Amino acid sequence: MSNIRLALCQLKVGPDQIANRKAAQVMLSEAADCGANIVVLPEMFSCPYQQEKFPEYAEDAVGETPKMLSEAAKEGRFFLVGGSFPEHTQDGGLYNSCYIFGPNGEILGVHRKIHLFDVELSGGVSFQESSTLSAGAERTVLDLAGIRTGIGICYDLRFPEYARLLALDGAQLLIYPGAFNPVTGPAHWELLLRGRAVDNQVFLVGVSPAPSPGMSYQAYGHSMVVDPWGRVLTDAGTEEKLVLVDIDSREPERVRRELPVLRHRRTDLYRITGKGSWEGLGDL
Amino acid sequence: MSNIRLALCQLKVGPDQIANRKAAQVMLSEAADCGANIVVLPEMFSCPYQQEKFPEYAEDAVGETPKMLSEAAKEGRFFLVGGSFPEHTQDGGLYNSCYIFGPNGEILGVHRKIHLFDVELSGGVSFQESSTLSAGAERTVLDLAGIRTGIGICYDLRFPEYARLLALDGAQLLIYPGAFNPVTGPAHWELLLRGRAVDNQVFLVGVSPAPSPGMSYQAYGHSMVVDPWGRVLTDAGTEEKLVLVDIDSREPERVRRELPVLRHRRTDLYRITGKGSWEGLGDL
Repeated sequence: MSNIRLALCQLKVGPDQIANRKAAQVMLSEAADCGANIVVLPEMFSCPYQQEKFPEYAEDAVGETPKMLSEAAKEGRFFLVGGSFPEHTQDGGLYNSCYIFGPNGEILGVHRKIHLFDVELSGGVSFQESSTLSAGAERTVLDLAGIRTGIGICYDLRFPEYARLLALDGAQLLIYPGAFNPVTGPAHWELLLRGRAVDNQVFLVGVSPAPSPGMSYQAYGHSMVVDPWGRVLTDAGTEEKLVLVDIDSREPERVRRELPVLRHRRTDLYRITGKGSWEGLGDL
Repeated sequence: MSNIRLALCQLKVGPDQIANRKAAQVMLSEAADCGANIVVLPEMFSCPYQQEKFPEYAEDAVGETPKMLSEAAKEGRFFLVGGSFPEHTQDGGLYNSCYIFGPNGEILGVHRKIHLFDVELSGGVSFQESSTLSAGAERTVLDLAGIRTGIGICYDLRFPEYARLLALDGAQLLIYPGAFNPVTGPAHWELLLRGRAVDNQVFLVGVSPAPSPGMSYQAYGHSMVVDPWGRVLTDAGTEEKLVLVDIDSREPERVRRELPVLRHRRTDLYRITGKGSWEGLGDL
């Protein structure tokens, strides 16, 4: 199919994990009623975005959160990019992880945030993800509802190399659950989403929690879909809400025919290359 | 010095090469009077931006245009990023070339446009630079007024790899003479300048001709300076004018301390690498 209905779940995240999970479940059910094909949750939708909370709220692959997500995907018959939750793995790692499900409830992939957010902004925002989290080491590209899709989480969005590698790997839709803040959000969220879209001529989706008064880390909201020409198709503002956007999966190819940027790359002069399991990329 | 005065010459380009050269000379003299340290001219400021005109208007390294530029730089005691003109070289090539001069009038470098603009936009803009031009093969980074500066021309701006390589090579200011058009200008000019600034935490300068009624290719104008946080410091609009902007060369380092994006690149997973004379890059 060329028409794909995206559903962005801009949830308000509170301190209560069970209540957060329940709210997500309700919105996922609403997305199903609306005929969504791909549904996206925000980064850390079931856990407050506080580095010291991550170990406390962590779950593994069979925890309540991924279980609920799997059931929701199966019930709604949609592809689900499950935002993220703090995941502890068998090797003892603690990751910021995005589970992706197919319409039978099956796990299609797991993206573990590759770039950890360690910053000290003059606007008063300070964060050291690496104090509790481990960094992922794999890029994530998979087929969702007939469109090749790359996944990143929040800070991964700041790295043009990562988005380019996803595009060179065939992705025409990039989805980033994220939680920018009142400093970086107004300054960079839309800019980065639009920039990655235009550079790679792909659809960009960013899904953030809604701002939630009283929480120590305020998410920016403004979940957004951008088309391959860089147009903002929707901006969810700051309220808790479900947003639906229909996209035409033929659009990236149309833009690439007019302005063949990827083909015009001077791969005789420079290349983006991967190491280890990333090898063999960047040769388009 | 940490304060650098930039002068952007948003010239209106007409069909008469001598008149164009004279107009540039007048504005360069004005920039000198204003105490500019680095002066930037637009892409193809002495030649109409029409692919069939390039051979006709072409000059070599000792032609009237580079001669005038050298004299202006020497007289004004400034660094001059000389926009571009069609250059024929001894090897028989015809390039879209940016000559860069020091305050003694000496040539510091020549950037030859690396990515040629071959597009067929649905808005009616069609261009095939490669029908008359050859593509450059060298990146250009040099010290201007105490700040390490990377140079690209117009379409080079669309390639995040090139800007990243300039930044990895130490550039904290990127300057792109360019001539976007009424289709790509409103859609992408500011976005790309701001995006490259934020991704690389550098100053970005784009200098365009002013729109010139009656010419077959309409430039977008909107010459612009963006700071390393992505703020637009100036936007020249669409009139012919000289714009002055003072920047603090310590700003990129300040932003990089707060948000160490370049240091957070996962060079264990991916790298941008160069070939031939570009080798050894991307190892930051």
